[in-house]
Amino acid sequence: MTTDANDEHGTAGTYVAEGQEFTRDTNYIPTRITADGRDGYPVEPNRYRLIIARACPWANRTAIVRRLLGLEPVLSMGICGPVHDWRSWTFDLDPGGVDPVLRIPRLRDAYFARFPDYPRGITVPAIVDVPTGQVVTNDYAQITLDFSTEWQDHHRDGAPDLYPERLRPEIDEVAELIFNDVNNGVYRCGFAGSQRAYERAYEQLFSRLDWLEERLSKQRYLVGDTITEADIRLFTTLVRFDAAYHGHFKCNRNKLSEMPVLWAYVRDLFQTPGFGDTIDFVQIKEHYYVVHTDINPTQIVPAGPRLDGWLAPHHRDELGGRPFGDGTPPGPPPADERVPAENTVPGLGV
Amino acid sequence: MTTDANDEHGTAGTYVAEGQEFTRDTNYIPTRITADGRDGYPVEPNRYRLIIARACPWANRTAIVRRLLGLEPVLSMGICGPVHDWRSWTFDLDPGGVDPVLRIPRLRDAYFARFPDYPRGITVPAIVDVPTGQVVTNDYAQITLDFSTEWQDHHRDGAPDLYPERLRPEIDEVAELIFNDVNNGVYRCGFAGSQRAYERAYEQLFSRLDWLEERLSKQRYLVGDTITEADIRLFTTLVRFDAAYHGHFKCNRNKLSEMPVLWAYVRDLFQTPGFGDTIDFVQIKEHYYVVHTDINPTQIVPAGPRLDGWLAPHHRDELGGRPFGDGTPPGPPPADERVPAENTVPGLGV
Repeated sequence: MTTDANDEHGTAGTYVAEGQEFTRDTNYIPTRITADGRDGYPVEPNRYRLIIARACPWANRTAIVRRLLGLEPVLSMGICGPVHDWRSWTFDLDPGGVDPVLRIPRLRDAYFARFPDYPRGITVPAIVDVPTGQVVTNDYAQITLDFSTEWQDHHRDGAPDLYPERLRPEIDEVAELIFNDVNNGVYRCGFAGSQRAYERAYEQLFSRLDWLEERLSKQRYLVGDTITEADIRLFTTLVRFDAAYHGHFKCNRNKLSEMPVLWAYVRDLFQTPGFGDTIDFVQIKEHYYVVHTDINPTQIVPAGPRLDGWLAPHHRDELGGRPFGDGTPPGPPPADERVPAENTVPGLGV
Repeated sequence: MTTDANDEHGTAGTYVAEGQEFTRDTNYIPTRITADGRDGYPVEPNRYRLIIARACPWANRTAIVRRLLGLEPVLSMGICGPVHDWRSWTFDLDPGGVDPVLRIPRLRDAYFARFPDYPRGITVPAIVDVPTGQVVTNDYAQITLDFSTEWQDHHRDGAPDLYPERLRPEIDEVAELIFNDVNNGVYRCGFAGSQRAYERAYEQLFSRLDWLEERLSKQRYLVGDTITEADIRLFTTLVRFDAAYHGHFKCNRNKLSEMPVLWAYVRDLFQTPGFGDTIDFVQIKEHYYVVHTDINPTQIVPAGPRLDGWLAPHHRDELGGRPFGDGTPPGPPPADERVPAENTVPGLGV
């Protein structure tokens, strides 16, 4: 038991000491990959490797943005397995348990290659410099913004503008609320160290979901009339809500599927190329229920919920909106990045 | 950790040893209170005291049948608190922590008064012989049948026949299926010692719920056209489903409120005098989430689910049926047996 629960999406998430509130250490490796290379890491095709885990909502953002912008040909992606021990994420899904590009069994090997005494959590997403095998950054909040703004030369034709300049203040403002109350809010429910801390987080979470339910009843997307970074950040928590947070983190005022607007909103995005095709429900459930032994010591993974509602018509297009603005949807994911059919919604056809 | 998880509704329920399936010891004290007194305990007004806990579904049956038959004036009732340690149920809700009639702080005192070395779980419901302070029986499956068939001289005017002679074979048959797959099935999910045992129990539970959903789509009650013992046995599990079993026991294919027929059926009963007025949702949640530290070590009690749907119209009367047959509904509960308003559905008016 520790209050240093900074590394939930890195190593085993930890229920904090009694009476404590869960606080997330937001201290990540600040190095950035930029067009001008000012931190020593210029944008360059086929130099870097993005490491994610399908289970992790913070990593999921990067997988979605990479898909929407069409960065697959220039930025390869490695996928860690859903469960791990205190030494954190491993490449156990790969043949031989080794990432085929980095040739390492554990993500921490890339962290230690750059920082031999790296003291914080080994987290996904991370971007690794392939030639040196060193981690460049794990700053998930910056990574997706840089995909939009620094990697522009490598965007596919028809890539949407996920972070349009004139909407940035509003996107940042909404994203901040979503981070505190929703993205991190579900963790604050699940890892609360006291009944009181839990109830405070629960109130804050559901108040914000009510606010979002209202806001999204009148507009198809969170900011403007196209998909933006704000929608991606909300999506990754909502898509996991009923499968993981509702039961495992006790976010149980209601299921997301009992909030008609948000349920239609998340289905709309799920059915949009680049979103649902990044989701592996089996790995999501396995990760949460197996790794967090402090709150699920039996490590039994629930068989539910049923997934058959995800492809139901959402009718969100009646609100107007242009998902990709002047752009186009991405094509299907590369063959070696497809989520196994048995791990997703029947009929999704990824 | 023990496979001797026989006493879940007695002492702390226990997640069984890895690889094991949860089995319930159905070996209860077989003494019966009968009209002819053949076991030494004749039916007699004001001689016995029924001990329940609001949290416990097995005890809940006896509280409902006592209400429906109007046995309150001849059989008093003591109520244990929702949480307890390994020494089992206590009278901590009573002034001074002592049952006002039996003058004991713990239910086990009545068990030990009769069997000094009582080796099995201290369970509710139990009936205690007040003059000697000794437990008579804890055989929950027999207690309610005896209320119907042995205490007939003391039934209220208008008491329903909950166990009509011509329907007994069908009631017994349905009750057996419900016991195995539903009443005990939820525990077999929650206390499964392996992923495989859990999944088997989950399949069995939801198959049976599907079967019930179908059966009850054509008839208002389980057997015949009136409320019987079979409905009471199903009700006590269904009413706890979304509040406890869905999350805590991982019975999460869907919430009960997502099965339209069963959800209307349980609301119909909940709104019937003698059913909903015995339900204390706060004590139910507290019991499960605090006592079962093997599966909820943090002991944090979920704030949800919302209870506002319980009084919605159920339209079950359109299927016909006569809830109490030729009888009448019971009056309100005695003042000292009312569930506190803040522990039940707003507006129930108990």
